[in-house]
Amino acid sequence: MDPVEPSVGWGVLHLFYRVDRAAFDAEPHAGKRIVDAVASLEADGHQAVTFAVLGHKADLGIMVLGPDLARLQAFQAELAGTPLELTWSYVSLTESSEYTSTEADERGRLESEEQLAGDELEARLAVWRDRMRHYGEQRLHPKLPPKRTVCFYPMSKRREGADNWYALPFDARKELMAGHARVGRTYAGRVLQLITGSTGLDDWEWGVTLFADDPVALKEIVYEMRFDPVSVRYGEFGPFVTGLVLEPAEALARVGVATAS
Amino acid sequence: MDPVEPSVGWGVLHLFYRVDRAAFDAEPHAGKRIVDAVASLEADGHQAVTFAVLGHKADLGIMVLGPDLARLQAFQAELAGTPLELTWSYVSLTESSEYTSTEADERGRLESEEQLAGDELEARLAVWRDRMRHYGEQRLHPKLPPKRTVCFYPMSKRREGADNWYALPFDARKELMAGHARVGRTYAGRVLQLITGSTGLDDWEWGVTLFADDPVALKEIVYEMRFDPVSVRYGEFGPFVTGLVLEPAEALARVGVATAS
Amino acid sequence: MDPVEPSVGWGVLHLFYRVDRAAFDAEPHAGKRIVDAVASLEADGHQAVTFAVLGHKADLGIMVLGPDLARLQAFQAELAGTPLELTWSYVSLTESSEYTSTEADERGRLESEEQLAGDELEARLAVWRDRMRHYGEQRLHPKLPPKRTVCFYPMSKRREGADNWYALPFDARKELMAGHARVGRTYAGRVLQLITGSTGLDDWEWGVTLFADDPVALKEIVYEMRFDPVSVRYGEFGPFVTGLVLEPAEALARVGVATAS
Amino acid sequence: MDPVEPSVGWGVLHLFYRVDRAAFDAEPHAGKRIVDAVASLEADGHQAVTFAVLGHKADLGIMVLGPDLARLQAFQAELAGTPLELTWSYVSLTESSEYTSTEADERGRLESEEQLAGDELEARLAVWRDRMRHYGEQRLHPKLPPKRTVCFYPMSKRREGADNWYALPFDARKELMAGHARVGRTYAGRVLQLITGSTGLDDWEWGVTLFADDPVALKEIVYEMRFDPVSVRYGEFGPFVTGLVLEPAEALARVGVATAS
Amino acid sequence: MDPVEPSVGWGVLHLFYRVDRAAFDAEPHAGKRIVDAVASLEADGHQAVTFAVLGHKADLGIMVLGPDLARLQAFQAELAGTPLELTWSYVSLTESSEYTSTEADERGRLESEEQLAGDELEARLAVWRDRMRHYGEQRLHPKLPPKRTVCFYPMSKRREGADNWYALPFDARKELMAGHARVGRTYAGRVLQLITGSTGLDDWEWGVTLFADDPVALKEIVYEMRFDPVSVRYGEFGPFVTGLVLEPAEALARVGVATAS
Repeated sequence: MDPVEPSVGWGVLHLFYRVDRAAFDAEPHAGKRIVDAVASLEADGHQAVTFAVLGHKADLGIMVLGPDLARLQAFQAELAGTPLELTWSYVSLTESSEYTSTEADERGRLESEEQLAGDELEARLAVWRDRMRHYGEQRLHPKLPPKRTVCFYPMSKRREGADNWYALPFDARKELMAGHARVGRTYAGRVLQLITGSTGLDDWEWGVTLFADDPVALKEIVYEMRFDPVSVRYGEFGPFVTGLVLEPAEALARVGVATAS
Repeated sequence: MDPVEPSVGWGVLHLFYRVDRAAFDAEPHAGKRIVDAVASLEADGHQAVTFAVLGHKADLGIMVLGPDLARLQAFQAELAGTPLELTWSYVSLTESSEYTSTEADERGRLESEEQLAGDELEARLAVWRDRMRHYGEQRLHPKLPPKRTVCFYPMSKRREGADNWYALPFDARKELMAGHARVGRTYAGRVLQLITGSTGLDDWEWGVTLFADDPVALKEIVYEMRFDPVSVRYGEFGPFVTGLVLEPAEALARVGVATAS
Repeated sequence: MDPVEPSVGWGVLHLFYRVDRAAFDAEPHAGKRIVDAVASLEADGHQAVTFAVLGHKADLGIMVLGPDLARLQAFQAELAGTPLELTWSYVSLTESSEYTSTEADERGRLESEEQLAGDELEARLAVWRDRMRHYGEQRLHPKLPPKRTVCFYPMSKRREGADNWYALPFDARKELMAGHARVGRTYAGRVLQLITGSTGLDDWEWGVTLFADDPVALKEIVYEMRFDPVSVRYGEFGPFVTGLVLEPAEALARVGVATAS
Repeated sequence: MDPVEPSVGWGVLHLFYRVDRAAFDAEPHAGKRIVDAVASLEADGHQAVTFAVLGHKADLGIMVLGPDLARLQAFQAELAGTPLELTWSYVSLTESSEYTSTEADERGRLESEEQLAGDELEARLAVWRDRMRHYGEQRLHPKLPPKRTVCFYPMSKRREGADNWYALPFDARKELMAGHARVGRTYAGRVLQLITGSTGLDDWEWGVTLFADDPVALKEIVYEMRFDPVSVRYGEFGPFVTGLVLEPAEALARVGVATAS
Repeated sequence: MDPVEPSVGWGVLHLFYRVDRAAFDAEPHAGKRIVDAVASLEADGHQAVTFAVLGHKADLGIMVLGPDLARLQAFQAELAGTPLELTWSYVSLTESSEYTSTEADERGRLESEEQLAGDELEARLAVWRDRMRHYGEQRLHPKLPPKRTVCFYPMSKRREGADNWYALPFDARKELMAGHARVGRTYAGRVLQLITGSTGLDDWEWGVTLFADDPVALKEIVYEMRFDPVSVRYGEFGPFVTGLVLEPAEALARVGVATAS
């Protein structure tokens, strides 16, 4: 099976499943096969986050990501051979933000706001470059953390009448996104967010995955951002799915699937 | 099973089920298992309200709430093991209103409107603090009352063109919400309403649960509020579900599920 | 079973069913059970109108109404125990119009337009009061007539930008509704219409049920009203279902369900 | 079975079916029953056009029309007793256009544009009356032609903000529709179109059925009309279904249903 | 079976299937029948592209195109006889762009921009004619290339308020589309796009099929075009489906269907 590797970033599938309990009861090894499929995917250099979903949209969610779309499709096909029914999904790729500060932005800021020059300026820029490299690496090749709750939703930027994001010049969009990022940073540590790109790949333009130990933090960050000018005028949101992050075997147990045999 | 407890408020699941009668007939104890699951959830410090739903959206509704999202998910999973099919649901958290009067608001009102000062003013503020503490407690940790009918609907605030709630300053929103609350208070005793927050958790921003003995009161309060400026320009409403509140065994009997055996 | 009676008006369920023919063939008495359920509901002081639906939305429609929501729910549950599948429904309550002329309106009109006074005026008002009492009674406690065709659709008033019904003052709304009623009266005898209220109970604000012997009349009245200023700017319409009104046993026969055995 | 005959025009059902092949295999005579049902409907003075549908919306389409809605419902019920699953449909009535030229329009045009008078004028008007009678008859009681491809779609006129069809005076609507008709006439012979009315009967206001031997003509007429001012500002379109018109037995064969036995 | 051939261009069906694995397991030859059906369609002068779909919208996609709509319908019917369930589809015809440069456009450009005349001008025009003939032929009778990934989405041009594509004069539309084409050309070699027409045939006005070896290119071209004035104000997009292009037997194997027996 030839790999299909994006030239930049990783492939991401958010997969939402309903459990066919009668079929699982009839096939005692099916639960273990799912756990093994996740382990095998991870052994192949990909990541998986499993969660028990609250409400009717699904029983079980599995977010998988990594360098090879063919491997991710193979995982999806493997689970299609178990009594899990795929009820919703989202297809995206990790990507850098086009609106992050450039080195020129930062140099200008250090010169004008902090009045730096010479070696001091260069030293600070070296630190900044390191931090940005780490941040960029986290967006393109994220390591997903063991927070206890998760929510996922897709979104697009509005293109309607006077509220048309795509009609704005780049600098206006960059400034609006900078304000948005400032809100996000006030939740650093409490909420980890991953924005992945899906224009041309799925029905919305981006997928947003949020992780937090406290479910209140999921609600608060999205609510607070709704007052941010970017969301006020330009945010369009798809369905929201919320779940409890758990190890694969535990997630399956919580939705009624035994994995012991 | 480790609990997942919101740092503020309780978790709330509105669960709407279709009854698979053939499967219930084939499994005589299933009805009793549902009643037991409700009792067990309540024994664990959570609440449940059961109701027979009118119309095709569901046969049975169960609203469950309490401190532990993991316990609520376990309840959902337990019912998924019975012949009840989950057709719709809503996920939210109880929350305080950000627009309730502050002590400074009330002090100012007492000074200017009622011309109070000194001990008299402080005594009145103490009474006010008590009342507000009780009101706030009811929103965060409500005790659901045995009214005879219920309706549930999710809603969001509009963000469109000139009617953009999130573009309003806080004071304008607070004033609009105060008018809304005044309408609600005219139904005190007739209608009990619980507003729970779902931004970031489910597809709308809030869930509204109304209880009344007289079904006309459910219709009248929502109709009257539709003329309130907040709803006129900023209310967006999801689907409405209406039901008859009943004890669990009685609710099941009314939708055709025996619980005796 | 304790009754749940609205303090004003009656409960109304529009129930739309698909026929599971294989299941009916396997259960010869099911058709008769449906006819008996309708008869029993009517014996309990409620009404039922049965109709064969045209097109894919349903095979069979049953509109039931009367004083007790618990009795109507019991009817719905009884039919859920037969091979009829409930595919759509609508929940509402009969209600008076808030825009009907008041006695003061009529007195003013008689004085100014017809120049009446004294006993003559009072006599005319007495006649008017009788007519209005009858009209109001027909809206709250209608007796459904044996016309040959029926259509049902839910509707709401628009709340968008400059076309916001709920932002209009009462007098403007009353005047607009008076024009609407005038169109309705030109169909008196040809079309019988029943408007029921569903704000807070179901997804739209009102349900409209039209009966006519000539199906052309159903089309013409709705089409003509679409040019009426109320509908032009403020009418939002849900799905339309059309059917042939028939006695219960005949309606079942027409959709392929035998009731003889 | 008492007929239900519209006072003007005919009833029309567009019925779209999915084939349950396993069920057809198990019931060898089912295909023949469908062919017989069509023949019997035609023997009763109604028409049927059968077509193999392209794409997933259906396998088989059957458009039936004629004077008696009860007979059309009986046909629908008869097919419901076969392994055809009704997945979509449309209910309408044939109707005259309210915007056709009147004799006064034509007299005026002949006098002013062609400077006719006296006998010559009257002779031309007699010819015109004949043509219009034929055209009107074709709309109310059409004879459907054996073209090779068909498309069907429902549509409504827009009622939004500044683009509100129903707010236009009759003369403006008549003039706009005249332009629309001129485009239609340039396709005379290539495309046959039938507009039927469904306000109050189904979810859109009109159904449009187009027949052409060349599928390109279906695309071109709809595309060209989209630039016509009526469609530019006032056309709202529902789903489009396209199919290959075939004799009933041949249509069934093409969707995998044998009719020989 | 008489062919149904468009007078211009080819028929195109995008078919999206869910795999019924239990049924495939019960019918060992079904996979091979699908591969044979594709081969037979190609032997009849049509093309097929098969792909494994990412996410829940389908397991398998098959895009088929060629001169005869009857042959394409026969292919669809043949697959309906296998355990593939058709969950979505799109019907369109290949077509020329009405906005390509005319010879007069190019002559003018060569005269004014490049100051050419006489034989030199005519020689350049001959080259241009050749290139355009090839380009036009590729749109009407495309040869689909073996790129590794594919995405498909339908789209329409907006007709709303001030953003009404169909209200623009031809020259304005031509100029806007020329800008759009310039973006497309910057992806020459990386992305191959095929625009097919579906006005009057399916629910949107065009179908867009993009092929690329690098999935990032699918995302980038659609994202970049979203900033193009045509899309900013006039683009409306339907659902997006993404897949991995594979030979038929390999595509089936990847979605869990054996084709060996």
